[in-house]
Order: sequence, then C-alpha cells, then structure tokens
Amino acid sequence: MKRRLLLVSNSTVHGGGYLEHCQQQIKDFFGPQVKRILFVPYALHNQDSYTKTARDKLKTLGGGNTFRLLKALYDHNLVTEIKNRVLQDGVPYMGSSAGSNVATVSINTTNDMPIVYPPTFSAIGLVPFNINPHYLDPDPNSKHMGETREQRILQYHEEPDTPSVLGLREGSMLLVEGNQATLLGSTKARLFQRGKPTTEHDPGSDLSFLLTDAQ
Amino acid sequence: MKRRLLLVSNSTVHGGGYLEHCQQQIKDFFGPQVKRILFVPYALHNQDSYTKTARDKLKTLGGGNTFRLLKALYDHNLVTEIKNRVLQDGVPYMGSSAGSNVATVSINTTNDMPIVYPPTFSAIGLVPFNINPHYLDPDPNSKHMGETREQRILQYHEEPDTPSVLGLREGSMLLVEGNQATLLGSTKARLFQRGKPTTEHDPGSDLSFLLTDAQ
Repeated sequence: MKRRLLLVSNSTVHGGGYLEHCQQQIKDFFGPQVKRILFVPYALHNQDSYTKTARDKLKTLGGGNTFRLLKALYDHNLVTEIKNRVLQDGVPYMGSSAGSNVATVSINTTNDMPIVYPPTFSAIGLVPFNINPHYLDPDPNSKHMGETREQRILQYHEEPDTPSVLGLREGSMLLVEGNQATLLGSTKARLFQRGKPTTEHDPGSDLSFLLTDAQ
Repeated sequence: MKRRLLLVSNSTVHGGGYLEHCQQQIKDFFGPQVKRILFVPYALHNQDSYTKTARDKLKTLGGGNTFRLLKALYDHNLVTEIKNRVLQDGVPYMGSSAGSNVATVSINTTNDMPIVYPPTFSAIGLVPFNINPHYLDPDPNSKHMGETREQRILQYHEEPDTPSVLGLREGSMLLVEGNQATLLGSTKARLFQRGKPTTEHDPGSDLSFLLTDAQ
C-alpha cells in the first residue's frame, strides 16, 4: 500500500504561528518534488477566502468544521476519489483537525458541533482507526460539568465494533508511510482501544500496530 | 397549544447534588397531581441502571449523549408520539442537557460527541428554536486552540435558515407553558439569532418571543 499521510491534531499551538509547530514535518512530508497541492476548503463557510489564506501562507490547512467538510466531500463525490488517489496512486494526504478526522474510519470522534447533516459518519478510511484531534486532558480546576474528552471516547467504545481512537493532543501529529505509523510533534498521544486500558505514547513512538485492521 | 416544558441546561451544578439546583422548579412543574413519570433512558448505555438511578433519586434526568438519545427515539418510533402527547394532550415534558436538546428543532447545537448516527438531526420540535445546554463562556486563560462555544454557534448560523439558539449556562433552565417562556435558575442565558447581535437575558426574563416561529 502506497499510502502517505500526515495527520495533524491542530493548525496552531498556543503562542505560535499558523502551522509553525509542524512546518518542518510538512516540508519533509511533501519534499522538494511536490509542486501542486489540492486544498479542500469545505470545512469553512467562506471557501474563497479560506483557499486564498491557505495558498498565501499555508494557514489552517484542513481545519474547520468536520461535519461541513465531510458533507461537502460526499456532495462532490470526492470520498472514494480521494481514497483511491491516496491508497492506490500514493498521492500524499495532509490534514489538520477536521482534515485529520475525515481521513479516518469515521467522524464519530470529532469535537465539532454537528451544524450540518452528512449522509453518513463514515469517512475516507485511509487508516483503520479514528482520531480525536485537539485531545484535552481533564482540567482539575474546572467547575464545568460537561463530560471530559476521555468520558466521551469511552462512551463511543460502549457501542459495538467501534475502532480504536488515537487522541492527538495539540502539537502532536501522526505520520503514516505505507504500513508504518510514527507519532511526531511535541506532545504525547493517548490511545483508546475498546475493551483495553488506555495507553500513553511519546513523540517518536512507532504506532504501526494501529494499521493492522484486527488490532 | 397545551405544551408544558421544563428544559434544563444540566443535571448537576458544581458543588451541588443531582438536580439540586432545579428541584423546586421540578416540584412546581409537575405539581402534586402527577403520579407517574415516563423516563427515557436512551442517552446512556446502561439503561437499566440509569432508570433505577432516576427512579430512586431523580438523578441526571434526561442527560447523557444526545446522538444516542435521538437515534433511540427514532428507532422506537417515539418522536412523533412524544410530540403529539406533549403538544396535543398537554403531557408535561422535562429534559436536562441531552433531554433539552431533543425537545427542540434539531440537535445541531449539542456539545456531544457524535458516537452514533441518527436518521436525521431533526428532533421532537416542541419549540421552534434550538438550545445549547452547558453553555460556556470563553476562558481567557485557556491555551487550548479549539473553537469557543460562541464560534461554533456562529458557524451554525452561517448555514441557511437556521433557527435561533438559546445558550443555557449551567444552573439555567427554560419553563414553557403554552405560548409563555420564562428563564429560570441562577445564571443568565445567551441568545443567538441569525443575522442579529447576540443578547444576554437574566433569570426571570420573559422569552415568549422565541415561541413565535418567525422571530
């Protein structure tokens, strides 16, 4: 399988510039031979402005609202097209936040508000697991009573046959090359596997075991 | 229209007991003549335990995951049934968090993770607007780069023909009696109307204007 993916948790780290935290990885990922990038602006409402921003400065690449992005990919019949181009032809795929969510099995573990209704939550399926971008540890000082991120993911795993969920903290990203997956960036990732204890993984970890369907 | 609704932001306020912040309102709402309550436990996975909890102590009434609750209501053909019983027969409806979300036009403004796929995001429609429960003001000290709650609701209003969204902060609830709507509880509510400036409303405010379809 030729697949090459760079799935980033988020576009901006607090105090840093747009995509600053992953610019070296983006450079390495695309390399000097890539001359043209197809940018998919569907996750934000003003697509022209978003595309201009991305073109000018490679800003907020692939972020926005996951539901809006996935619905537009289906509306334009792009899901299978992208899947084939990436998995069969080896076209590199990079996504951040919403763009990482739609690369996985499904968008069931997005943090976004469901502002539009896509025809399914199934996504492009470039990897056999799900991602939770912007993964957030519980704040012990919070007085807010909403569920923690961990509780939400554990609720997801109460449902039958649900895939593993990789919680990518801000500053973290996953590089996939064929059947090799490596965690990059500056923060650890938290892995939720249905029926197993959750585990923490340091930057540099080999996560290739997540690419076998029957983990 | 006979409708009588009590839509609560959340079941527990920080530092308080289950439904403690709204127990007087619940008592007033159901009154002495109500002997039996139909409890809908679909929003949590372990429904027997949830029902027992609710029966024993009226705990976390109507909370849980909004997607799971709405899907189960459709799976059991209960959406129209509940709507008719509440709007035509005047059966009182009380919901908290997920239970408030499903009482509105749609679940497009839930905070929950989309762990299951309902056949539509349209909900019971007991009122002609949407609610965002657990409404949260931006934390100026946060380093997290996810969208604020306000940003998410404004994204929703970028979509055409989207209804108003009432942001109910924790500790807040809406009482609807026929064509009268009153904000109760201890916290203010924030109202988002498409194409208009957002507004703040104190406890005790008359929000009946939200019940006319063409606000």
